[in-house]
Amino acid sequence: MKVAVVGVTGYGGKILWQLLQQHPNVTAVTVYTRQADLTALQNQLAWSAIKPFTVANFDVDELMANNNMAFFATSAGVTKDLALTFMQARFPVIDLSGDLRLQDGAQYQQWYQTDTAAPAEALAQTSYGLAEFNQATGAYIANPGCYATATLLGLAPLVQGDLVDLDSIIVDAKSGVSGAGKKLSDSTHYANVDENFSLYKVNAHQHIPEIMQQLQVWQPQMPPFQFTTGLLPLNRGLMATIYAKVAPADVFEFEEKLALTLEKLYADQPFVKVTGQQLPDLKAVVGSNLTAIGWQFNPQTRTVMVVSVIDNLVKGAAGQAIQNFNQLFGFAQTAGLGQLPFDI
Amino acid sequence: MKVAVVGVTGYGGKILWQLLQQHPNVTAVTVYTRQADLTALQNQLAWSAIKPFTVANFDVDELMANNNMAFFATSAGVTKDLALTFMQARFPVIDLSGDLRLQDGAQYQQWYQTDTAAPAEALAQTSYGLAEFNQATGAYIANPGCYATATLLGLAPLVQGDLVDLDSIIVDAKSGVSGAGKKLSDSTHYANVDENFSLYKVNAHQHIPEIMQQLQVWQPQMPPFQFTTGLLPLNRGLMATIYAKVAPADVFEFEEKLALTLEKLYADQPFVKVTGQQLPDLKAVVGSNLTAIGWQFNPQTRTVMVVSVIDNLVKGAAGQAIQNFNQLFGFAQTAGLGQLPFDI
Amino acid sequence: MKVAVVGVTGYGGKILWQLLQQHPNVTAVTVYTRQADLTALQNQLAWSAIKPFTVANFDVDELMANNNMAFFATSAGVTKDLALTFMQARFPVIDLSGDLRLQDGAQYQQWYQTDTAAPAEALAQTSYGLAEFNQATGAYIANPGCYATATLLGLAPLVQGDLVDLDSIIVDAKSGVSGAGKKLSDSTHYANVDENFSLYKVNAHQHIPEIMQQLQVWQPQMPPFQFTTGLLPLNRGLMATIYAKVAPADVFEFEEKLALTLEKLYADQPFVKVTGQQLPDLKAVVGSNLTAIGWQFNPQTRTVMVVSVIDNLVKGAAGQAIQNFNQLFGFAQTAGLGQLPFDI
Amino acid sequence: MKVAVVGVTGYGGKILWQLLQQHPNVTAVTVYTRQADLTALQNQLAWSAIKPFTVANFDVDELMANNNMAFFATSAGVTKDLALTFMQARFPVIDLSGDLRLQDGAQYQQWYQTDTAAPAEALAQTSYGLAEFNQATGAYIANPGCYATATLLGLAPLVQGDLVDLDSIIVDAKSGVSGAGKKLSDSTHYANVDENFSLYKVNAHQHIPEIMQQLQVWQPQMPPFQFTTGLLPLNRGLMATIYAKVAPADVFEFEEKLALTLEKLYADQPFVKVTGQQLPDLKAVVGSNLTAIGWQFNPQTRTVMVVSVIDNLVKGAAGQAIQNFNQLFGFAQTAGLGQLPFDI
Repeated sequence: MKVAVVGVTGYGGKILWQLLQQHPNVTAVTVYTRQADLTALQNQLAWSAIKPFTVANFDVDELMANNNMAFFATSAGVTKDLALTFMQARFPVIDLSGDLRLQDGAQYQQWYQTDTAAPAEALAQTSYGLAEFNQATGAYIANPGCYATATLLGLAPLVQGDLVDLDSIIVDAKSGVSGAGKKLSDSTHYANVDENFSLYKVNAHQHIPEIMQQLQVWQPQMPPFQFTTGLLPLNRGLMATIYAKVAPADVFEFEEKLALTLEKLYADQPFVKVTGQQLPDLKAVVGSNLTAIGWQFNPQTRTVMVVSVIDNLVKGAAGQAIQNFNQLFGFAQTAGLGQLPFDI
Repeated sequence: MKVAVVGVTGYGGKILWQLLQQHPNVTAVTVYTRQADLTALQNQLAWSAIKPFTVANFDVDELMANNNMAFFATSAGVTKDLALTFMQARFPVIDLSGDLRLQDGAQYQQWYQTDTAAPAEALAQTSYGLAEFNQATGAYIANPGCYATATLLGLAPLVQGDLVDLDSIIVDAKSGVSGAGKKLSDSTHYANVDENFSLYKVNAHQHIPEIMQQLQVWQPQMPPFQFTTGLLPLNRGLMATIYAKVAPADVFEFEEKLALTLEKLYADQPFVKVTGQQLPDLKAVVGSNLTAIGWQFNPQTRTVMVVSVIDNLVKGAAGQAIQNFNQLFGFAQTAGLGQLPFDI
Repeated sequence: MKVAVVGVTGYGGKILWQLLQQHPNVTAVTVYTRQADLTALQNQLAWSAIKPFTVANFDVDELMANNNMAFFATSAGVTKDLALTFMQARFPVIDLSGDLRLQDGAQYQQWYQTDTAAPAEALAQTSYGLAEFNQATGAYIANPGCYATATLLGLAPLVQGDLVDLDSIIVDAKSGVSGAGKKLSDSTHYANVDENFSLYKVNAHQHIPEIMQQLQVWQPQMPPFQFTTGLLPLNRGLMATIYAKVAPADVFEFEEKLALTLEKLYADQPFVKVTGQQLPDLKAVVGSNLTAIGWQFNPQTRTVMVVSVIDNLVKGAAGQAIQNFNQLFGFAQTAGLGQLPFDI
Repeated sequence: MKVAVVGVTGYGGKILWQLLQQHPNVTAVTVYTRQADLTALQNQLAWSAIKPFTVANFDVDELMANNNMAFFATSAGVTKDLALTFMQARFPVIDLSGDLRLQDGAQYQQWYQTDTAAPAEALAQTSYGLAEFNQATGAYIANPGCYATATLLGLAPLVQGDLVDLDSIIVDAKSGVSGAGKKLSDSTHYANVDENFSLYKVNAHQHIPEIMQQLQVWQPQMPPFQFTTGLLPLNRGLMATIYAKVAPADVFEFEEKLALTLEKLYADQPFVKVTGQQLPDLKAVVGSNLTAIGWQFNPQTRTVMVVSVIDNLVKGAAGQAIQNFNQLFGFAQTAGLGQLPFDI
C-alpha cells in the first residue's frame, strides 16, 4: 500500500506520519508539500523515518498516479476545492480537515467564517468517519474533529437510547494546547497557558455543528446543547464532561440501563474502554488511540455525568484516520494502532 | 495589634504568614507550634520575615495572654476541641479549618468522616465568614473553604434573586494542586499531576455542605446540586463553572436582570470584579485576593454559565481570613490585601 | 514623586508597573504609549491600579514637564536615540533596555546586531546600575540584564577576590520563558517549551558583553568565559550555575576564604541572601527582589560551584530598577520592594 | 521467547512492560510480584496488555522453570542476594537495578549507603550493559543507570580519544521527575517541582561510581570529575551537558577531530544520532530509545561543550535493557524499539 500525505507539518499531520511509519500494511509514504519546503521537510522527517519515504511537490495528478490513497491533514480551506477531483477519479481520500464534515454548506460557511463551502455534489459523496459508528465505505471520508469524537462517543449511549432529557445536556470539555495547532498566537504563548486555565469559543467552537449533525442522525429531534471549551496547561489530551438529567420515572433503573447500553455499544470496539464508576483521567489514554468512558449517576439530583477522554491528536485526529484507513481497505482494525498510553 | 497564628506549616498558613508580614495594623506575630518544631520553624520563617516575630510552644493560656486575637490554620480536627475555650474567654478567633463551618454537627461527622464534631454550644456562637455577605461580628469566625468561596460568590446572584431553576444547577469546579495541601499522596506526586487532568470526590467534596448551608440561608428550599471537582496541573487557582437553566418565561429579560443583580451585589466590593461577557481566566486573580466573575447566557438552550475564579490560597483561605480580620477590628477593608495578581 | 513609565506592555514593564503601584514614595504614575494604544492600555491597567495613573501619548517634552523622572522598559533600539536629550535636560532616567549598558558602541552593534549605537557622549554619561556594587549617582542609569545580574552577583566574590583560576570559569545558566519576552515565536509556543529543556544562544547571548565589562572593572585582565543559556519549562526564575577551578595551593583554605568574602560583600545587602552549602532553588526567590547565593567546593577536583538565583523579572529587571530609583532619590533601600517569594 | 519481569510497579518496570508488549520475539510475559498484590497488578496491567500475560507470586524456581530469561526492575537491595542463584543455574538475567553495576562491593556499600553488597563471585560474572560499547555476552547483565548512560555516551569520544584535559571535565546534568521514582517525598510533591528548578545530590549521585568505573576501562588514569544533578519540572527526559578544556596545542584541529571521532564511534549505532553543532533538546528523543549528541567548541576559551540527551526511562532504563536483550539472544538490534519520539 502506497500512501500519500498532504500537510505533514501540523500536529495532526506529524502524528499521522508517526503512525504510518509503524503501520504494517503501508510500504511507502510520499509526503506532499510546496516546492519551497521540499528540502527542509525532507531533513526534518529523516529524523524519525523508519521506512522509505519521498517528499514531493504537491500535484494532484502525480499524487494519484503514484499512490493508492491520500490523507489530507491540511488546514481549513484546502480540500473543499480539491475533493471533487479525487471523487471523480474514484481515488480514496481520508480528510482530517473540517472542510467536508458538514453536509450543509451553509453551516460550514457560518461556523468556519468563510464565503464558500465544498460543492454540494462533493458533500453528498462524503461520509463522516466516526469510526465506531460509521463503517468507512465511501471513497471520501471526512475524519471527525477532536471535540466531536470525545463528545459523540460519550453522548451516544445517552442519546441513541433516549436515556436522558435531551434538553438538559451540557458538555464541559477541555483540551491541551496541541488542539490549537502550531500557529503562533497569544493564546499559545507559553506564559499565557502555563499555570492558567481559560475558557474560549464557548458555544462557538466549529466542532459543535458536526456533533449536532451526527446526534440528529441518531435522534432527529435533538435540540441545541451547551458546549464549553477550555484550555488546559498541557500538550495532549481532551476530556468531555457531559451532564444530563434523567426523568423522575427513570431514576430507579437508570444505572443498570446505562451500564447495559454502554456494554452493548462498545463491547466489541477495541479502542473504547468503559471504566464504569471510575472516572478516567487523561493519562489513561494519551499517546494511544483509546477512548476511555466512565460515568456516575446522582439519583438525588437526577444528574448523570459521563466522562469521555481521548488523545486529541490520536483518537481525535490521526489515529481515527488510521482506523478509517483500516476499515476502508479491510486491514485489521488495530493495524498500526498498538501504541499504549504514555502513562508516565 | 498582636496576632497569634497556629499552624503555619500548611499552604494556607504560609500565605497567611506572608499577608500578615505586610499588614499595616499588625505589629507583631507569634507563631505557635509543637515544642519539637520550634527551631526548625524559626529558621524557616526568618527567610521571609519583615517584622518582629516569635515562635512559641502552643499553649492556650499563654496565647490569650500575649495576643489580641488568633488565626488557626490547622488541619481538620484541631479547633473543634479548642473553640469553646476561646469563646468562653471572649478571645477573638478566625478559624481557617473546616471544623466549625457546619452548624449541624452531624453533617460535620458525615462529610469529614469522624465521630465527633465541635460542641453545639460552640457551633451556635460561630459565624460563617463569607466576607462579602456576612459582616464579621461574632468573636469566632469560621473562614470558608476555597471551593465554597468561589461557588457561593458565583451562585449568589442566581440564587438570591431566584433567577434560575434551582433544580438545574451544576457546578463544574477545578483547582490547582495546592488545594490538596502539603500531605504526600499519589494524587500530589508530580508524575501523576503533570500533563494530566483528573476528577476526584465528585459530589463528595467536604465543601459541599457549607455551600448548601449558605445557599439555604438565601433560599430555604434550595435543593441538592451537582458538584464536580477536578485537579488542574498547576499550583494555585480555582475556577467554578456554574450552569443553570432559566425558565422559558424569563429568557427575554434574563441578561439585563443578571447584569443588574451582579452590579447591585458587588459594586461596592473591592475584591469582586465582574467581567461581564468576558470570562475570566485564573491569571486574572492568582496572587491576589480578587474574585473575578464573568457570565454568558445562551437563549437557545436557556443555559446561563457563570464563571467565578479565585486564588484558592488567598481569597479561598488566608486572604479572606484577613478580610474577616479587617471587618472584625474595623480596619480598612483592603488593609494588607493590596497584592496584585502575579499575571506572569 | 511623579514617575513616567515608557513601555509597560512587555513583561518587565508590567512588573515595574506592579512595583510602582506599591511604592510608598510614588504618588502618581504616567504611562506613555502610542496614540493608537491609549484606550486599550488604559483599560488593561485599570484592573490592577491602586493609585492614580494616567495613560498619555509619548512626547519627550510633555514627559519631562509633568514628571520627576522616567523609567524606560522599551525594547532594544528605542533609547539609544533618546538618551542624550534627557541627559542634556538633566532629567533622570532609569533604562531597563540594553541600549546603553555597553560603554563601547561597537560592542553594542556586534551583540545587538544593529548598525548604530547610542552616541559616545551619551554612553560616557551612563552608569551601569548593578545596585549592590554601583551606587546610582549619575542621572542616566542603564539597568542590568537578568543573566548579567545573577551571574555578576555570583561571580563577584570569586573574581574580585582572585579566588579562582579566571581561565576556568564556566557559567551554565538557565531561565524561564518570560525572559524571552512577549513576542510570538516558535521558541515560546507552549508545545515547544512544555516538557522540554533546550539550549540557545550558547556563548552568543547579548548579556555576555555587559558581564565582561563589569568583570573587567573588577579584574582588568579577565579573560573570556563559557556562557551557556538554557530555557526551562516555567514562567519566572533564573539560575546561574558557576564553575571554576581553585589553584592547588589554595585548596586548603578555600572554603573559609570564600565564606568570608561572601559575608563581607553581602552582609549589609538586604536583597542578597547567602545560603552557604545549601544550594538555593528558584522558589527561594521568585516573586521577590532577592538574590540567593549558595556554593559547594569539591577539593578532590578543585572545583567550586556557586549557584545564584533570581526572579528574572524582579531582581533581573523591574526590581533592580526600583533599587536604583531608591538609591538615586535617597529613599529607603527596600521601599516598594517588600514582596516575599511566592513560595507556593 | 518467554520472559519474566520482576518489579513492574516502578516507572522503569512499567516502560519495560510496555516495550515487551510490542517486542516481536516475546511471546509471553510473566510478571512476578508479592502474593498480596497479585489481583491488583493483574487488573492494572490488563488495561495495556496486547499479548498474553500472567501475574504470579515471585518464586525463583518457578520463574526459572517457566521462562527463558528474567528482567529485574526492582529497587536497590533485591538482586544482590538473588544474583548468584541465577548465575549458578546459568539462567540469563538483565538487571535494571544498581545492585551489581559496581565491580567493587565496597564502592556499592559507600554510594548506596548499605552494609552489604552482592558477593564478589557474583560481581565477577556480571557484565555492565552499556549497549553501544559492551556487547552483551555473559548471562548476567547489569543495565546502566540513566545519568550514566547519557554521560558515558557523551564522554566516550572525549575520553577514549584523549581529546581533552581529563582534569577539567564538568558534567552539569538534569533530569525530569520520573528519574526519582514513584516513592512519595517532598521532592516529588507537585507544588515543590512545578515552576521550580533545583539541584540535588551534587557530586553525590549513586550513578557517579559506575560512570567512573567505565571511564577507567577506557582511560585507566581517569581522575574524579564534577557531577551536578538537577531536577527539571517535567516528567521524562535527561540532559547531560559536558564541559572540558582542550589543550592549547590541540585547539586548531579539535573540531575536525571530534567530528571524526563521533562519526567513527556512532555511525553504525541505530540509537545514537549525532546532531553536530545543533544542540539537541529533550523533545528530540523523549519517548524513544534514542540518544542525541551535539556539541560546540569555543576556541577562545578552549572549552568544548557536549550535550547528550536521552529519555531516562527508555534509553536510560527499559529501552537499553531491551537492547541488551536483543544482543544477548541475537535478535535484530532494533527489535521492539521502533518507538519514535513523542515530539508533541
